[in-house]
Amino acid sequence: MSSATYWITQLAVAVSAAAGVLEAGKKRFDLFGMILIAFAAALGGGSLRDLLLDRTVFWVADQNYLLVALGAGLATFFAARWVRLPANVFLIPDAAGLALFTVAGTNVALAMHVPWLVASFMGVITGVMGGVLRDVLCNEEPLVFRGTLYATVAWLGSLLLILAIYSGAVPGVSAIAAGILIFAVRLIAIRWDIGLPKFRSR
Amino acid sequence: MSSATYWITQLAVAVSAAAGVLEAGKKRFDLFGMILIAFAAALGGGSLRDLLLDRTVFWVADQNYLLVALGAGLATFFAARWVRLPANVFLIPDAAGLALFTVAGTNVALAMHVPWLVASFMGVITGVMGGVLRDVLCNEEPLVFRGTLYATVAWLGSLLLILAIYSGAVPGVSAIAAGILIFAVRLIAIRWDIGLPKFRSR
Amino acid sequence: MSSATYWITQLAVAVSAAAGVLEAGKKRFDLFGMILIAFAAALGGGSLRDLLLDRTVFWVADQNYLLVALGAGLATFFAARWVRLPANVFLIPDAAGLALFTVAGTNVALAMHVPWLVASFMGVITGVMGGVLRDVLCNEEPLVFRGTLYATVAWLGSLLLILAIYSGAVPGVSAIAAGILIFAVRLIAIRWDIGLPKFRSR
Repeated sequence: MSSATYWITQLAVAVSAAAGVLEAGKKRFDLFGMILIAFAAALGGGSLRDLLLDRTVFWVADQNYLLVALGAGLATFFAARWVRLPANVFLIPDAAGLALFTVAGTNVALAMHVPWLVASFMGVITGVMGGVLRDVLCNEEPLVFRGTLYATVAWLGSLLLILAIYSGAVPGVSAIAAGILIFAVRLIAIRWDIGLPKFRSR
Repeated sequence: MSSATYWITQLAVAVSAAAGVLEAGKKRFDLFGMILIAFAAALGGGSLRDLLLDRTVFWVADQNYLLVALGAGLATFFAARWVRLPANVFLIPDAAGLALFTVAGTNVALAMHVPWLVASFMGVITGVMGGVLRDVLCNEEPLVFRGTLYATVAWLGSLLLILAIYSGAVPGVSAIAAGILIFAVRLIAIRWDIGLPKFRSR
Repeated sequence: MSSATYWITQLAVAVSAAAGVLEAGKKRFDLFGMILIAFAAALGGGSLRDLLLDRTVFWVADQNYLLVALGAGLATFFAARWVRLPANVFLIPDAAGLALFTVAGTNVALAMHVPWLVASFMGVITGVMGGVLRDVLCNEEPLVFRGTLYATVAWLGSLLLILAIYSGAVPGVSAIAAGILIFAVRLIAIRWDIGLPKFRSR
C-alpha cells in the first residue's frame, strides 16, 4: 500500500468509527456494543475488499488501524456527551468515510492490476460496506438504499479516478480530486434530497 | 475452471441477476439499488464458495461476469416494464439459478479435491447464498426458510452428482442430469407445496 | 493447529451446534433449516477468523467438523423432543461455545504471530460470530447486544490468556483457566443480569 493510501485509509477509519458511534448513540447499546459498531463501520468495507482480492486484511498486519478506530470511537463518544449534536450529524463523517474509502479501495485494486470494472466495484464495496454493516447492526435501513445518491456517487468517483489514472494524470492529484468530488456531491445530494428516479416493475 | 463449468456459471449469473431484479422490482429501490441486488444475487454464492475454498473469486479475475450480471439485470428491468408479470415469476429464474449454481459449485469443489461432504456443502452454499443475500437485502424472509424444499433439493442433487462422478459416470452428462433434476424437483415442490415436516422442540 | 486446540474446537463445534438447534427449535423451521442454523452457529465464527487470517478454513480440510456439527445438532434435536426443556436452556451451551471458541481462536491467532490486539480481536470474533449469525438467521436480537456481559467477557478472557502466554505461563493451563473463567463469568452475568452501563448520546 502506498504511503498516501495508508494515510487516506487511517483517516477513513477514524471518520467511519466516529460516524458509527454517532449512529449507535441513538440506540441503547452498551459501551462495548458501541465499540463493536465503530469497528464494523471502520473496518468492514476494507476487510471485504481484501478478502475478495485475496490480500492480507489491512488491519490484521497492522494493529494501528484498530487503535485509531478505538481512539476515534471513544473520543466521539465522550465529545457527544459534552455537546448537543443534531440527530443527523453522523451523515458528515459518513460522507467523508465514503469518499476516503472509495478512493483508497480503488487505489488498492488498481495496484493489484484487476480489470477496471472490478477495480471500480472494489472502490464501491470499500466505500459503502462499512456503513451497510453499521446500519444493519443498528437495525436501520442502510443509507445505500434510502434514496439519495450514495453508492452511485462512489461509483462515478471511482470510475473518474480510474479514467484519470489510465489517461496519465498524477495519481495523488487524481485521488484528492476524486475524494473531494465524492464528498461534495454526496453532501449536495443530502442537502437537496437528490436521488435516482425510482422504479417499480408492474 | 473447465469450459462447461464456465458457461454454466455465466448462465447461472444471468438468471440469478434476473431473479434479483424481479424480486427487487416489488420494492421501491432506485436503479442503482436494483443493480446492487442483481449483483448480490448473481455473485454472492460463488464468492462465498471461493473465499471458503481459498480460490481467486470468480468475477475478480474476469469482469465478463459483472457485464453479464449487469446486462441481464438491465434487460430484465426493461422487459418487466413492457410485460405484466405475475408476482412470483422470479421463482422460475431463481430455481434455474439454484440448479446451475449448485452444479457449478459442486464441480469447482470436486476439482479442488476437498472431502465429499465438504464438496456437497459447497454446492449448497453456491446454490443458495446468492438468493439468501438477495432476500435479506430486499427484507424478505429467505426462500430457504420458507418451507418448500429448497436447500434440501440442492443438497440431494449435489450428493447424487458426487456419487455419479465417483462411480465413473461421464462428468458432463452427470452435471446436466443433476441440474435438470434440481430444477424439476424445485418447481414440483413449489407447484404442490412440498416441504420437509416442520418440528418444534417443547 | 495443536492437538489441544483441535479438541477444544471439536467440543466448541458440538456445543454451539446444540445451542443453535435449541434456539431454532423455538421457531417453526424444518429439519434442514435447523441443520443449517446448527452449521452456521458451529462454523461461522471460526470461518470468519480463518478468512481474515488467510488460513485454510478449518472445516474445509477436515470434514469431521461437519460430522460433529451434524451429529450434535441431530442428537440435540431428538433429545429436545423427549425432555421438556426450559426456554433459555440454550444459554448454557452458548456460554460453553463462547468460552471454547474464544480460547481456540486466540490460540490460532497467536500461532500465526499477529499483533496481540489483533489476536484478542480474533478470539472475540471466533467466540461470538457463530452466535450472532445464529441469532440473525433466527431473526432474534443478537445476544451480543442484549445487555448482559458477553463479548466483553470474551475479550477480557482472551487478553488474559495472551498476557499469561506472553509471561511464560504453560499454554495448556492458561487456556483451560481462561476458558473456565469466560464460562463462569458469563453464567454469573446471566444469573445476576450484569452488564456494562448503557449510554445514549444527547
